[in-house]
Amino acid sequence: MTRRVLQLGMIGGGSGAFIGAVHRLAIQLDGEARVVAGALSSTPERALESGRELGLAADRTYPDWRAMLTSERQRPDPIDAVVIVTPNHAHFEPALAALNAGFHVIIDKPMVVEPAHASALQEAATRAGRILAVTYNYTGYPLVRTARELIRTGELGPIRKVIAEYHQGWLATNLASEGQKQAAWRGDPVLAGAGALGDIGTHAENLIRYVSGLHIESLAADVHTLVHGRRVDDDALVRLRFAGGAVGHISVSQVCVGEENGLALRIYGENAGLTWRQEHPNELHLNTLSGDRRIITRGSTASQAQGLGATRLPPGHPEGFIEAFANVYRGVFAAMRGERGAEYPDVNAGAAGVRFVAAALSSRGAWVPLR
Amino acid sequence: MTRRVLQLGMIGGGSGAFIGAVHRLAIQLDGEARVVAGALSSTPERALESGRELGLAADRTYPDWRAMLTSERQRPDPIDAVVIVTPNHAHFEPALAALNAGFHVIIDKPMVVEPAHASALQEAATRAGRILAVTYNYTGYPLVRTARELIRTGELGPIRKVIAEYHQGWLATNLASEGQKQAAWRGDPVLAGAGALGDIGTHAENLIRYVSGLHIESLAADVHTLVHGRRVDDDALVRLRFAGGAVGHISVSQVCVGEENGLALRIYGENAGLTWRQEHPNELHLNTLSGDRRIITRGSTASQAQGLGATRLPPGHPEGFIEAFANVYRGVFAAMRGERGAEYPDVNAGAAGVRFVAAALSSRGAWVPLR
Amino acid sequence: MTRRVLQLGMIGGGSGAFIGAVHRLAIQLDGEARVVAGALSSTPERALESGRELGLAADRTYPDWRAMLTSERQRPDPIDAVVIVTPNHAHFEPALAALNAGFHVIIDKPMVVEPAHASALQEAATRAGRILAVTYNYTGYPLVRTARELIRTGELGPIRKVIAEYHQGWLATNLASEGQKQAAWRGDPVLAGAGALGDIGTHAENLIRYVSGLHIESLAADVHTLVHGRRVDDDALVRLRFAGGAVGHISVSQVCVGEENGLALRIYGENAGLTWRQEHPNELHLNTLSGDRRIITRGSTASQAQGLGATRLPPGHPEGFIEAFANVYRGVFAAMRGERGAEYPDVNAGAAGVRFVAAALSSRGAWVPLR
Amino acid sequence: MTRRVLQLGMIGGGSGAFIGAVHRLAIQLDGEARVVAGALSSTPERALESGRELGLAADRTYPDWRAMLTSERQRPDPIDAVVIVTPNHAHFEPALAALNAGFHVIIDKPMVVEPAHASALQEAATRAGRILAVTYNYTGYPLVRTARELIRTGELGPIRKVIAEYHQGWLATNLASEGQKQAAWRGDPVLAGAGALGDIGTHAENLIRYVSGLHIESLAADVHTLVHGRRVDDDALVRLRFAGGAVGHISVSQVCVGEENGLALRIYGENAGLTWRQEHPNELHLNTLSGDRRIITRGSTASQAQGLGATRLPPGHPEGFIEAFANVYRGVFAAMRGERGAEYPDVNAGAAGVRFVAAALSSRGAWVPLR
Repeated sequence: MTRRVLQLGMIGGGSGAFIGAVHRLAIQLDGEARVVAGALSSTPERALESGRELGLAADRTYPDWRAMLTSERQRPDPIDAVVIVTPNHAHFEPALAALNAGFHVIIDKPMVVEPAHASALQEAATRAGRILAVTYNYTGYPLVRTARELIRTGELGPIRKVIAEYHQGWLATNLASEGQKQAAWRGDPVLAGAGALGDIGTHAENLIRYVSGLHIESLAADVHTLVHGRRVDDDALVRLRFAGGAVGHISVSQVCVGEENGLALRIYGENAGLTWRQEHPNELHLNTLSGDRRIITRGSTASQAQGLGATRLPPGHPEGFIEAFANVYRGVFAAMRGERGAEYPDVNAGAAGVRFVAAALSSRGAWVPLR
Repeated sequence: MTRRVLQLGMIGGGSGAFIGAVHRLAIQLDGEARVVAGALSSTPERALESGRELGLAADRTYPDWRAMLTSERQRPDPIDAVVIVTPNHAHFEPALAALNAGFHVIIDKPMVVEPAHASALQEAATRAGRILAVTYNYTGYPLVRTARELIRTGELGPIRKVIAEYHQGWLATNLASEGQKQAAWRGDPVLAGAGALGDIGTHAENLIRYVSGLHIESLAADVHTLVHGRRVDDDALVRLRFAGGAVGHISVSQVCVGEENGLALRIYGENAGLTWRQEHPNELHLNTLSGDRRIITRGSTASQAQGLGATRLPPGHPEGFIEAFANVYRGVFAAMRGERGAEYPDVNAGAAGVRFVAAALSSRGAWVPLR
Repeated sequence: MTRRVLQLGMIGGGSGAFIGAVHRLAIQLDGEARVVAGALSSTPERALESGRELGLAADRTYPDWRAMLTSERQRPDPIDAVVIVTPNHAHFEPALAALNAGFHVIIDKPMVVEPAHASALQEAATRAGRILAVTYNYTGYPLVRTARELIRTGELGPIRKVIAEYHQGWLATNLASEGQKQAAWRGDPVLAGAGALGDIGTHAENLIRYVSGLHIESLAADVHTLVHGRRVDDDALVRLRFAGGAVGHISVSQVCVGEENGLALRIYGENAGLTWRQEHPNELHLNTLSGDRRIITRGSTASQAQGLGATRLPPGHPEGFIEAFANVYRGVFAAMRGERGAEYPDVNAGAAGVRFVAAALSSRGAWVPLR
Repeated sequence: MTRRVLQLGMIGGGSGAFIGAVHRLAIQLDGEARVVAGALSSTPERALESGRELGLAADRTYPDWRAMLTSERQRPDPIDAVVIVTPNHAHFEPALAALNAGFHVIIDKPMVVEPAHASALQEAATRAGRILAVTYNYTGYPLVRTARELIRTGELGPIRKVIAEYHQGWLATNLASEGQKQAAWRGDPVLAGAGALGDIGTHAENLIRYVSGLHIESLAADVHTLVHGRRVDDDALVRLRFAGGAVGHISVSQVCVGEENGLALRIYGENAGLTWRQEHPNELHLNTLSGDRRIITRGSTASQAQGLGATRLPPGHPEGFIEAFANVYRGVFAAMRGERGAEYPDVNAGAAGVRFVAAALSSRGAWVPLR
C-alpha cells in the first residue's frame, strides 16, 4: 500500500537560511512528505522570491504566514502541517494560529522563548487535537535510540551521573556585530530570547531527558558572556539534580575555538557507563562494571531493534545529521498519519526545554526547581 | 530560476534490494530528480508489485525493462535517464538498449562484467551522445574531493606510494549457500562476474584513479577464495605500478571478521602524505614533510572550494554515505542538464574498472599491462 | 662529567603498595638516583621485610622513619632526600622532621591534608633551605609542557575557558568495605583526609595551574558521595573563576564505570584552543581561530623545546606514565643538584593543592575565595 | 629473597647513539640489571669518552670489544652478558666471540645480515649453552602478548589472513647523503646489509610469528628504492603464504611522509579478528563473528594473565615503548637466571628474521620458500 505523500507549508527558511534548508533535506530524504507551500520570509518580497527559487507553485508561495494559513484552509488539497523555522521569537504566533486553524505544527527548537507561551501551546495543541512537534533532531540518531534502549532495559543499572556537553567555537568572535546572518539574530536578545542556552543548551537538556528518562528536579546555572560586546549568553555551566538522586551537569559554550559541533553525552549507572559523541555518531561506547568495553556500531545487531528501526544502511556506511533529522520527521509523519506507537518530540518536550532555558537564565548560580 | 525535476526510470531495485533503495535516497535527497518509472525486477510480478509499493504510477510500472524503454520513448513526458541497479551480469543489455533508445544511463558499479561489453558501451555512449554514468559513490565524499584538489595543486608533490584497502567481514561465512539475498547473487560467478574484486575492488581502483590522478600501467594480483565452498574470490592483493614510477597496492577482502565497510586510502608524495577512511569520512589527515599534522574537516575552510561544493552542512554536522552518493548524482544531473564543467564518473571510468577487475582475475600473480 | 647518583630514603611504599613501586620505577629509569634506604611501612616488621625484598642494605632498612632520619644524618654517606609515599594523613610529620633534619623532601600528592600543615611546611622548607617537591606527575608529560609553552608564548591568546576532568570508575562499588587495600585507606576520612577531591581532584587543579598559568581566585564546589556506604566524597563538580576573567570547571569522579584514568584538559583562548588527554598522552590537539586543526605529537619538532627536553624517544615511540613521572623527578634532581632554572612542583604548588581541596570541601555550593 | 643484579657489558651505543640509550633505559627500568662495562664505539677514543659520560668504572671502559671480552673473563666479578647495539654488519663477530667466551649475548635486531652467520650463531649458542637473545622489542607490549594468548586459546579460530604494516616517513628524503647519523649507516648497504626490510621489516615478520604462531612457508617480495640516490631498499611489499593455508602480506616503508612509527598488526580468523597498533599500544581491538566489538585495555582483567604479567600499571596509566622493551629484557634476564618457562626472542627467532630479509631481498617478485 502506498501512503499519500504529506504536504507541508514552511514558515521562514527562505534563501540563505541554514536550518530551513536542512529541514527540507530531512523532509524529502525518504519521500514521505514534500514542502508544497511557503511563507519563506518575514519580508514579503523575499518570501515570494524564495518560493520561486525553491520551485513552489506560484499560488502556494505566500507573502506572509497569515495568508498561507487562510488560503491553505480553503483549498481542497490543503497542507497537512506547517514547519516553522523562523528566528525563535517568531515561533509562537504562527504556531498558535496554525494549531487553531487545524494544522499540525512542526517547530525548530527552542519551541518558544517565553514559558507562558510554552504553556499556551501545550493547551492549544491539546484543544486542537493536533500534533505539535519540536525538531530535537539529535534524538533521531540511531545510536541515541540504542542508548535509550540500553537504559530502559536496565543495562546501566540505576543512573548516578550524567554529563552533557555542547561546545562550539563559531561564536568565538563577535560575529553578530560583523553582520554574519546566522549569528545576527542569534545574538539579538529580542529575536533569539537567549544565546547559547536557547540555541544549543536546549538540545543538551532534551538529549539527557530522552536518553536517560530521568526528570530534572532542579538546576543551578552559571551563565556567562565571554565575548566582549555580545548581548546574549555564550557559555554556561548548568548543574542538575535528578529525581532519584542522580547528579549531572551540562556544559554549553559557543566560544570554544576549534570545537565544531561538540555535543556529547555520558551517562554512568551502577552497572555500566555509556558515551556517545555527535561528531562520531555511528559508534556508541558501552563499558561495564565487569570490565567489558564494547563499541556498538550503528546498524549492527548489537545496536538493537529501536536503533535499527531508525537506520537506512548497514554498519560501516556512515549515516549523519540529515538522516537523524529525517528520523525525527519519520516519527512526526507517523504520528500525523495516526500510527500507533509513533514517537516524536512533542509539545511537552518542547515546553520542558523552554522552562529549562528560562530557569537557567534566572538561576544566577542558585538552585531553581523545575516542575 | 527553478530547474525542471529530472525524471528517472529504474531497472532492478525492487523491494528487498539494498542498493536500489540507496539510489532512491540519493536521488531524492536534493529534490533534483525523481524516480517516476520502473522495471524493478526481472520477475514481472515482483516488478509490478514493487512499483506499487514505491508509489509509481500504474502506467509507468513496467513488467520488464524492454517494455519501459519502448513505452517511455513514446510518451510526451519520457524519462530522462535509466538507472540500472540489477546484478552485474544484467547491466550490459539494458544499458546498451537505453543508450540506443536515446536515454542517458546510470549504472551501479561494476559497469559490466566483460571488457568487451565495456568497450561496446564506450562506443555506444559516444555514438548516441548520451551520458553513461557509473555510480562510484565514494568519489562523492567531500573530503575525497578535497584530497584530489590537494594532489592536483601539488600539495603532496610527486606521488611515490599509494595504498588502498577495502576490507569487509560480512562474507566471512558462506552466506551465499545459506540463501542470504545480497550474498546469493554476489556469490554466483555467472550473476556477479567476480567476487570481492568486482564488488568492492573496483571501488578501490576508482578511488585511487580519482584522487591521485595517476594511471595504473600494470598490475599483478594474488586472488584468493578463503571461505570453503565459495565459488568466487573473496580476498585479493593487487600490486600496482603507476605511470611516473609510483608504486602501490590494493588489499581487498570480504572475510575480515569485524570489518564493516573498511575502505581507506593513503597516498604519500615527496612533500606530504594523506589518509582518508570511509568510516570516518568527515576528516582527512594531511601530514607534511616539515612535520605539520593537520586534520581537515568536511565543510571547513581548509577543505577547499571543490570539497565545499559537495557539502550541505557546516563542519561538525556529520555527512555520510547517502550524501556522498547524492553528490555523485548531482554531477550526473548537472551533466544531463548540459552544465559546463559537470563532473561525474563516466563510461571511461566504468570501463577502466571493468578492465582492472578482468586483469586482476587473469593475473595469477604475474604483471599484466593495463591500457 | 659524570654526576653522582643521588641517594634516596623512602618512607612508606612497602610491598603491595602501588604508588611506592611507581616512584621507584620513575626514580631508577634514568639512573640519576637510587633508593638506598627505607622505612617502608608503619609496621616495623613489614618495614624490614619490605626492605629485604627490595634489596636494601640491612643497615639502611629501618623499622620506622624516625630511626631512618636519625641514623642517616650520622652516616658519612647520608641520603640526599626522603621520598614520602605513605597515606595522606601521614605525610606531614615525616616531611617536617626531614626538612628540619636537613634533608630534601619529595612527597606524593596531596602534600598534606590540613591547610595549616601546608603553611607549616612552606615555612619549614624556606627556613631549612631545602627542597620540598610534590609529585604532581602529570606535569611531567612532554606534551603537557608543550601546552604550557603554547600558552606562555601567546599562541592561544587571552584564556576564556578551562575544563579539566578526572574521571575514574574503580570506586564505582564500595571497595573500601570489601577490604581492597588501595581503596581502604583512600575511603577512610581520617587516613585520606578527603576522597576523590584529594586523590585526583588535586591533580586536575595542579594541571590547570601548571599549563594555563592562571590563578584561581575563587571556587564553588558541589561535592557528592554517590556510592552508598562510602564515608568520603567520590564525585565533585568545582566551578572556577580565574584572575583576569576566565571561567572554568573541574569534574572529578571515581564512580564513572568504565573510565580508567580519564584525566583531560581543555583550554580555550581567544585565538586557539587545545585538548590533551592523559590516556593518549602522545598527542596534543591545537585548533586555531583561522580553522587550522593540528595534532602535535610528542617528540616532534612541533612539540617545541620545552617538550623535547622531557622526551626520551622519537615521535611514534609511545612514552607513558612512568616516563612522565620520571620527568618530574628529573626536575627535582636538577634542583637538588642546584642547577639553575630547574623546575619542579614545589611546596607552594603543594600548598595550593591542599587549600584547593579544603576550600572545595567547605564550599557546599557557595563561592569561596582562594588566596 | 633478593636477586643479584645482573651485570652487562655493552658493545656500541656510545654517546649520540639512539638505540643504545633505549637499551639502557629498558635495562635499568626494573633495577634487575645494570650496564657496568662497555666498549661503546668502534673508535677507541670515542669508546673511552662515552664510558666516562655514562659513568662506567674506568677499568671497565674498554677501547674495543675484544679487550672487554678478554678482561671481563678474567675478573672475579665478570659481566653476565654482552649487549650488542652496533650497526648490523658488526653484530656477528662480537656475538660469536662472546658466546665462545662463555657470555650470554643480547643483540639488537636484525641479529646479523648473512643467513650463514645466523646459522653459525645458532650452532654457537647451542654449543656454548649460552643464551642469545634478539631484542624484538615489540613482542614486549602487554597487549601483543594478550593477542597471542587470544590466538593460542582459539578465540579467533583458524587464521585466514594476516596483515602487518610498518610505515615510517623519516627517510622520505635522502638523509644519509645529508650526513644524519642514524640514517647514514642504515643507508649504507655494507654497514646495514639491507634498508627498510632489515631495519623494520624484520620486526613485522617477528611480530606476525610471535602473535599468530603461524609458520611462513614462502614469500614473494617487491622491493623498492623510492627515494632517488638511496643505495638500499626503502619500501617493500612482501606477500606471505602460511602453513595451513592462511595468506598475508607485510607492507614496509620508510618514505611514507607523516608516518612516525606505524607498526600495526591485523589478524583475521574464522571466528574473530583483532587489530593492534603500536602507536596506541594500550588498546587491542577484538571483533567477533557474532558482532561483538571489544576494546581490551592493557592491565585490565580482559587483557588476561599473560598480558598482565608484562604490566606495571593499572589500566588508564599508559605504558609505552620503554616498558615493552624492558619486558623483553625481563624474559631474557629470567632465562639468564635459569628460570623455568622464561620466554624471550631467541637465536632461532633471530635466524628466522635474517632468512626472511634475505629471502625477500632475493625474491624479485617470485615465490621463495622459507625453511
